[in-house]
Amino acid sequence: MRVEIVALSTLPEVRPGDDLAALIRQAAATEGQTMDRWVVLAVAQKIASKAEGAVVDLREIHPSALARSWAAEWKKDARLIELILSQSRRIVKMDRGVIIAETRHGLVCANAGVDQSNVEGDFATVLPNDPDASARRLLASLGCGAVIITDTFGRPWREGLVDVAIGVAGLDPLDDHRGRTDRHGRKLASTIIAVADQLAAAAGLLMPKPAGCPVVLIRGFDWQPAEGSARSLLRKPEQDLFR
Amino acid sequence: MRVEIVALSTLPEVRPGDDLAALIRQAAATEGQTMDRWVVLAVAQKIASKAEGAVVDLREIHPSALARSWAAEWKKDARLIELILSQSRRIVKMDRGVIIAETRHGLVCANAGVDQSNVEGDFATVLPNDPDASARRLLASLGCGAVIITDTFGRPWREGLVDVAIGVAGLDPLDDHRGRTDRHGRKLASTIIAVADQLAAAAGLLMPKPAGCPVVLIRGFDWQPAEGSARSLLRKPEQDLFR
Repeated sequence: MRVEIVALSTLPEVRPGDDLAALIRQAAATEGQTMDRWVVLAVAQKIASKAEGAVVDLREIHPSALARSWAAEWKKDARLIELILSQSRRIVKMDRGVIIAETRHGLVCANAGVDQSNVEGDFATVLPNDPDASARRLLASLGCGAVIITDTFGRPWREGLVDVAIGVAGLDPLDDHRGRTDRHGRKLASTIIAVADQLAAAAGLLMPKPAGCPVVLIRGFDWQPAEGSARSLLRKPEQDLFR
Repeated sequence: MRVEIVALSTLPEVRPGDDLAALIRQAAATEGQTMDRWVVLAVAQKIASKAEGAVVDLREIHPSALARSWAAEWKKDARLIELILSQSRRIVKMDRGVIIAETRHGLVCANAGVDQSNVEGDFATVLPNDPDASARRLLASLGCGAVIITDTFGRPWREGLVDVAIGVAGLDPLDDHRGRTDRHGRKLASTIIAVADQLAAAAGLLMPKPAGCPVVLIRGFDWQPAEGSARSLLRKPEQDLFR
């Protein structure tokens, strides 16, 4: 078994309104990469957001009292804090300058997905409105096998960030091994692998932030085609021990 | 940029006392895979534990009162619960049949790393005594560039398991981008990527549990050689918002 991960290196800077599928198709063609149904395409959230215009001008934001007091306490930009709060439907943790929030998509992450890296001056990106739909549009336009939209998340207990799938089309993000048996005939009790997150992390090996290779092709991974949705990756509140 | 991930498919069943490096060297040779300093070798915890004899006979365990009451309430094997408690230095969460514990290594995971999959009858594996040392021994013996020992962990908030690095040798598990600047000259504030965990997840794409390909070679990933330790991946208690 062999999986190959290739980053597209000729993608131009993506701007609001750009046809992202066309830019990816062009870069792939330039680099001799064919899109076919054996390719899982991983696209960094940042460029999906930019292409979709999910970019906010901080000069148009009027910070609330909470945003102003938090920003003053932790030496942050109050407009950015207000944007983070506006992108949240629930604050999971707000402590020591860190805001962990649940976005309206149900994603739990730092700063509700608001990010200033690789964006100009007074601007920040927010998450795509519907990352599954972003993935579906690219899938339909590019003719690859599956698309995941990835973002870089922190984790409790562990240092460092890893990439996860926030949008999915063309594959089931969970590979359910329950009911199958191991080498010794024992039923595998609770082995559901988050393959979309493993794919995102694999792609993340070639998406280091400063270099900025936000589109990665994965070939040789074997999956059952399915419509798929990143919502499957969200733990239901009633099953969440860390809510 | 191109990364290649290859699973060794001819590794035999690993048993206590086996020379794991020799088995891996043999399988790699059989499959025409060369070990060199550009290879990151990912090895599943399960076989490292087996080779090191980190396998426990449940028939020799005398469950404590807590283990017995928890097992009765959740229809579990009291001997297994006792083993989990004995491998823990702190219980992070014990609720609805689930035990999330901090192991004596400082890893926070379900069941303190105790696992019955792919083990015979009344036996269970525990984590290697010192997973960094397990990785260092394989590195010294095999002559590859880096070794990570991987295990499959759940996460708060997200469904499904992903592979992470619990032992590391030959690379810094954290790639620190702080101080570097993005395309727009903005300092990257908090971008530390857990590359060892991204590598583990990438390897995990080829380590599905029932198939059992527990050794994976990763080629083409670019890293700065370093002694490395998976301890770098453990968040310090004073910085942990979810302790």
